[in-house]
Amino acid sequence: MDIFERRESEVRGYCRLYPAVFDKAENALQFDEDGNRYIDFFAGAGVLNFGHNPPAMKEALIDYLSANGVAHSLDMSTTAKRTFLSAFENIILTPRSLDYKVQFTGPTGTNSVEAALKLARKVTGRRQVVAFTHAYHGMTLGALAVTGNAKFRNAAGVPLDGVIRLPFDGYAGAGDTSLHALREALADSSSGMEPPAAFIVETVQAEGGVNVASGEWLRAVQALAREHDSLFIVDDIQVGCGRTGTYFSFEDMGLDPDLVCMAKGIGGFGLAMAVLLIKPEYDQWSPGEHTGTFRGQNLAFVAGARALDYFRDDKLLREVRDKGGRMHERLAAIMKEHGRGRWTVRGRGMIQSLDTGDGQVAAAVLRRAFERGLLIGTCGTDGRVLKVMPPLTIEDGVLDEGLDILRAALAGEAADA
Amino acid sequence: MDIFERRESEVRGYCRLYPAVFDKAENALQFDEDGNRYIDFFAGAGVLNFGHNPPAMKEALIDYLSANGVAHSLDMSTTAKRTFLSAFENIILTPRSLDYKVQFTGPTGTNSVEAALKLARKVTGRRQVVAFTHAYHGMTLGALAVTGNAKFRNAAGVPLDGVIRLPFDGYAGAGDTSLHALREALADSSSGMEPPAAFIVETVQAEGGVNVASGEWLRAVQALAREHDSLFIVDDIQVGCGRTGTYFSFEDMGLDPDLVCMAKGIGGFGLAMAVLLIKPEYDQWSPGEHTGTFRGQNLAFVAGARALDYFRDDKLLREVRDKGGRMHERLAAIMKEHGRGRWTVRGRGMIQSLDTGDGQVAAAVLRRAFERGLLIGTCGTDGRVLKVMPPLTIEDGVLDEGLDILRAALAGEAADA
Amino acid sequence: MDIFERRESEVRGYCRLYPAVFDKAENALQFDEDGNRYIDFFAGAGVLNFGHNPPAMKEALIDYLSANGVAHSLDMSTTAKRTFLSAFENIILTPRSLDYKVQFTGPTGTNSVEAALKLARKVTGRRQVVAFTHAYHGMTLGALAVTGNAKFRNAAGVPLDGVIRLPFDGYAGAGDTSLHALREALADSSSGMEPPAAFIVETVQAEGGVNVASGEWLRAVQALAREHDSLFIVDDIQVGCGRTGTYFSFEDMGLDPDLVCMAKGIGGFGLAMAVLLIKPEYDQWSPGEHTGTFRGQNLAFVAGARALDYFRDDKLLREVRDKGGRMHERLAAIMKEHGRGRWTVRGRGMIQSLDTGDGQVAAAVLRRAFERGLLIGTCGTDGRVLKVMPPLTIEDGVLDEGLDILRAALAGEAADA
Amino acid sequence: MDIFERRESEVRGYCRLYPAVFDKAENALQFDEDGNRYIDFFAGAGVLNFGHNPPAMKEALIDYLSANGVAHSLDMSTTAKRTFLSAFENIILTPRSLDYKVQFTGPTGTNSVEAALKLARKVTGRRQVVAFTHAYHGMTLGALAVTGNAKFRNAAGVPLDGVIRLPFDGYAGAGDTSLHALREALADSSSGMEPPAAFIVETVQAEGGVNVASGEWLRAVQALAREHDSLFIVDDIQVGCGRTGTYFSFEDMGLDPDLVCMAKGIGGFGLAMAVLLIKPEYDQWSPGEHTGTFRGQNLAFVAGARALDYFRDDKLLREVRDKGGRMHERLAAIMKEHGRGRWTVRGRGMIQSLDTGDGQVAAAVLRRAFERGLLIGTCGTDGRVLKVMPPLTIEDGVLDEGLDILRAALAGEAADA
Repeated sequence: MDIFERRESEVRGYCRLYPAVFDKAENALQFDEDGNRYIDFFAGAGVLNFGHNPPAMKEALIDYLSANGVAHSLDMSTTAKRTFLSAFENIILTPRSLDYKVQFTGPTGTNSVEAALKLARKVTGRRQVVAFTHAYHGMTLGALAVTGNAKFRNAAGVPLDGVIRLPFDGYAGAGDTSLHALREALADSSSGMEPPAAFIVETVQAEGGVNVASGEWLRAVQALAREHDSLFIVDDIQVGCGRTGTYFSFEDMGLDPDLVCMAKGIGGFGLAMAVLLIKPEYDQWSPGEHTGTFRGQNLAFVAGARALDYFRDDKLLREVRDKGGRMHERLAAIMKEHGRGRWTVRGRGMIQSLDTGDGQVAAAVLRRAFERGLLIGTCGTDGRVLKVMPPLTIEDGVLDEGLDILRAALAGEAADA
Repeated sequence: MDIFERRESEVRGYCRLYPAVFDKAENALQFDEDGNRYIDFFAGAGVLNFGHNPPAMKEALIDYLSANGVAHSLDMSTTAKRTFLSAFENIILTPRSLDYKVQFTGPTGTNSVEAALKLARKVTGRRQVVAFTHAYHGMTLGALAVTGNAKFRNAAGVPLDGVIRLPFDGYAGAGDTSLHALREALADSSSGMEPPAAFIVETVQAEGGVNVASGEWLRAVQALAREHDSLFIVDDIQVGCGRTGTYFSFEDMGLDPDLVCMAKGIGGFGLAMAVLLIKPEYDQWSPGEHTGTFRGQNLAFVAGARALDYFRDDKLLREVRDKGGRMHERLAAIMKEHGRGRWTVRGRGMIQSLDTGDGQVAAAVLRRAFERGLLIGTCGTDGRVLKVMPPLTIEDGVLDEGLDILRAALAGEAADA
Repeated sequence: MDIFERRESEVRGYCRLYPAVFDKAENALQFDEDGNRYIDFFAGAGVLNFGHNPPAMKEALIDYLSANGVAHSLDMSTTAKRTFLSAFENIILTPRSLDYKVQFTGPTGTNSVEAALKLARKVTGRRQVVAFTHAYHGMTLGALAVTGNAKFRNAAGVPLDGVIRLPFDGYAGAGDTSLHALREALADSSSGMEPPAAFIVETVQAEGGVNVASGEWLRAVQALAREHDSLFIVDDIQVGCGRTGTYFSFEDMGLDPDLVCMAKGIGGFGLAMAVLLIKPEYDQWSPGEHTGTFRGQNLAFVAGARALDYFRDDKLLREVRDKGGRMHERLAAIMKEHGRGRWTVRGRGMIQSLDTGDGQVAAAVLRRAFERGLLIGTCGTDGRVLKVMPPLTIEDGVLDEGLDILRAALAGEAADA
Repeated sequence: MDIFERRESEVRGYCRLYPAVFDKAENALQFDEDGNRYIDFFAGAGVLNFGHNPPAMKEALIDYLSANGVAHSLDMSTTAKRTFLSAFENIILTPRSLDYKVQFTGPTGTNSVEAALKLARKVTGRRQVVAFTHAYHGMTLGALAVTGNAKFRNAAGVPLDGVIRLPFDGYAGAGDTSLHALREALADSSSGMEPPAAFIVETVQAEGGVNVASGEWLRAVQALAREHDSLFIVDDIQVGCGRTGTYFSFEDMGLDPDLVCMAKGIGGFGLAMAVLLIKPEYDQWSPGEHTGTFRGQNLAFVAGARALDYFRDDKLLREVRDKGGRMHERLAAIMKEHGRGRWTVRGRGMIQSLDTGDGQVAAAVLRRAFERGLLIGTCGTDGRVLKVMPPLTIEDGVLDEGLDILRAALAGEAADA
């Protein structure tokens, strides 16, 4: 029995799907200890938007380490944090005319969500939060309460309350009707509905199955929040940082969120980091009211600042839109060729997906792809959706090669079924 | 207005206490961007047990980066994780005849606590958890529920239930009586008390005011947990990893916790990492039941594995005991000299404290110390306790220098009062 | 200041609307201490289905008292309880081929609802209960959680959780869509919806505004409950006991509830009594598991048994249908004459209503009616709905007289507006 | 199978202990349908303080019925309510210099407790309520949360939160220590304890095992409540109305409760009625904020007003003290004779008890007593305590006869053991 089986908890998951011990990685490629090569269509679930070991960040990290830069600083001020903040202001906020305060929360997405929910409840003095079917916001109890997945929720061991659950855009045909009914209910003191502290929404539900919300529906959610003085929170943890072809996934949609949760890609290099963006009028925290040990991860500031260089011009984002379009076309063609009308293709930018409608089929495709040297993840109910999410920086040839492997795996599965 | 004021949320805290922008650091010294030198008696609240930028870890990190090692891997297997697990097994578990499974949770202490509470509730099918006055376990809602501090709790915005709160050892003279009364109550079906899923305790309450539990009381807590099939959880996040003079703070006390929460020092270098140690019979997770993006922080595995080298022999721990003794003596002398019977000294190993009984006094001492080049933290109710917690590796001369500064600050404050 | 103002709590309500001190009453008439005569269109909110002081019941009560019958018996067996149970079996259950066990709960509707919710949760091992907009089920915390009205809910002082709130039939056009979306969600492990212990519904929401559910929608609710092994509970507290023209309000609708909550009219004479009807397979209580002091109100058993005599044949129920039809026609005519398109008439059997759309208008009409000798209640959001609910036994002439007064009050208000 | 088995829910309890069908009753005697005579040492769990069918009340009820008095009036004003209120003011409040507002809640003890908790939470804006081991306050979810018994609590099916549970006077030696520890904790912002809305206490825990609190301890509870602006609530439902030898059980103890819950004996005749007494400054209800159908039980007002006549002078209360003393002496003698040092006698006034320490022993004694014509109840954990609680008006000879039967049953059980 190897040490992973002997010592690592039964909770381990991905290592069961990808039975290899990984050693090296470069951009969209991972290599196991035997030198086998894998194309990475998973990208750390959105962490590795700029690939593995991007040279500029790697160099900056080595320089920082070599110079005895402060690695860990709680929430003291450091030169590395200043550099990150300045880059974020200059490259991201100012050009988009956005005015957000930045909270460095504990360095995980779930912590950013916990901070957002606390703040929304504090600002409004309300308790309920509206969340949607198939939402994924994290594993700690506050974030878990707004997450939809029953396996995760049941592990809480305590009731997960304070949440009004609504159908997401298109869910059971009720996305719009239910918003309308909630509007009526919130105006009606006999409805049993309390005004919520916030609406929290993903523009694309990544873990939930790559469900893409329309701008129209998102604007309706935002409008309802505004009407009732609820905060409008976008969880951009998985699909922010350029993934959809804009820096924030909600750009160009007429949206103006009050709070934005970010993590994963924000650290650039795969180092843990998370932030909550807060409109200044809602930055009503007292000092230290939400705290945490690892808020000052300076290596992540160093890499994260360099990652922002990708957004100094439109080059990367244009590539994302181009490659995303090609990914979509290829998937649509595969669906048409092998899907027998049972498959669906969904996505925005470089998060694309093929919904097989059957978790066992998707799992089998994942295994076939792994055997052929492709790492791909599944998501959605019972894992029925294949999520195609390579680094934004993947080379065209490698992308095509990965899509060819995926096509072969899907074709093989379809033939055997 | 500088960028920190302009862009960073009002929640920022330590940067207000230490108005400097830090740039470099080495072992127990930090330097601000103007070259000012500060002795670090804070050590990242227990993160930097081995000081800033320890050379062996720094070198290992640079080597790993240079070789394009996998930085981020979710919970896939990697060579870096294997190295860490092997070192943890060989250096820590085996010599102590401990048999724990290791869960890599999201890389923060609060996440380790959330995982522990979920697991205890799952294993027992119970909901309540016993926690103690002045406990600090984290900021996310599950961990916050067992935390004692009202400022933090009030920020939840939702009720924090599922907790039975008991007096800690010595609290209001009720530590023992209340354990006895709970024992009666748990044997009595009319008491209104449900059998708890777990008891969660810190052997030394660091944030709570450096309250040191006796072995006798801790054994009584453990015994009560055993009697009622509750899990006994030690939160060793701040005082584990050698801080008290043994690797785990609960060694040599006749304790055998079912779950152990670790974070802070486990990553060695200040990189975010957290683990939950689980007795094999309680490792009842299903795969992926508690998940998170940043469970595979390989740079932390690399540094963390090297950090374990400190525990291959007793050299460091002996130094901790020696230096801890000296710290205690010096503080006791300062108390005797200036305390007018109002101050108290408490601690174990290299977490020592001077309780001034007055948050304003402690805050003033902190400011005076900072002006003289010493970073020190406060804790306990209203921050009345000065917590002395340098890196375990602090040089004797620097330790003495820091204690001299602290003495001067305390003397000055006492004189002005 | 009279004793009511001096000694009775500010919580008193109806005495403010009807500023009189009542002394005597007979069938549909009440008399104040000055001998003023009032027609009762309120009937104790459904308690006095058989009018005030119905002679047969009055005589039976006097006989029972005179003979030193047991008045109070907790849940011991008594001859009076046997008489009631036999009558209920013979007159109500057997002819309708219904097989229910009878639980005598504490003698209030809210207690019957509390018992129903406890039992549904016990039987299913689930926590959530589906309740509807505008529902009214009671004031104690369990029943209050499923009630919709914000004024009542806000008085709880604690969160009211464990409830999934859905639109009632017709509410914001979402009654059907939302049932459909819940069906999808309950079949989908990522929806965030747990399978509920029960669906609790009123066939006519009396306090909620005399909202009448269609048989089709009620059957859809029942079908959804059945699909997911949830109990289907009908709260027939206000509209049972003959009010709608059948004994139970859900007869002749293809419904087969698992639990039925009854109170108000069941005691016949206005004496406190409540029962929960339970399908035998769900009668899983252990002895004494839900208890209460006043479960053995033998005077109510005596009167309640005599009240069941009304249902030995179809005479009363036919009259209810006839008078209900006339009430509806008269109200429709008044609406047409004075409503300017803003009013609505709704109801079933002898619970009819005129929705003025404006709480101030309805309150003014109530005052005008009172001045003319008619007691009428309001309900619905802001009390905008006039609820017409006389005793089922009201004489035709008195009914017409009351409707004339109501017409005059409405006409007057419409003219002044 | 008789109709009780066939139709009454399995929840029925007392009818299993006393397998008879009761028909008539007079003062302290009950008769079954076969004419068997039983002495009533149970008195409807405190309802029948004035015995069964007390002639003056019976006559008043018959007169009221005959005159077509209003039986049911919601919370409208009636002449019967005025008579009750005046008597309560003149006979009870004024002579004791008490100034309480009277809220007629739904006519059950649990409803009075629900109202008290709501009001305390509303007045203070706080959520937690302090309740004690072995407390019994009712079955609806709000009251159940403060009740101690696990069988009842587990039937809730939902978490019962918002309660701080403390040891009652003498419980595990912790009654005083725990009050002291709570005092410290409430003054300490890191204790994890929120200031409570109220402390709710029974002066004698009747259902909990006839546990008698000392005046000293009760004053300490009241003092702690006052210190922290919490309301001090006495639940006098079972031991008020003269049971302990004063009208309220808390008289002559230096207590001044803010809210007093009353039910059971207040209706005099066994008719359902409950009130909440409220200090005027806390009567902060808005009209109708806590409501209920059966608040206007005029027959209970009629009988309850006559019951107050017993307190126009000290005659009854003197008898209660005398008979209570004799009961206590007799029980003490029986204990001495047969208890072998395992039994305990506890009580105040005419609620006395013999704690056998063993639920099976107590159940066997109950059966033996029943066979000999004595109705007696059990209480406390596992029902180990025999509660001796006859009507206050029991004739001396009947009391002695009952005590003789009890002695014989205890002696027989002791001999067989």
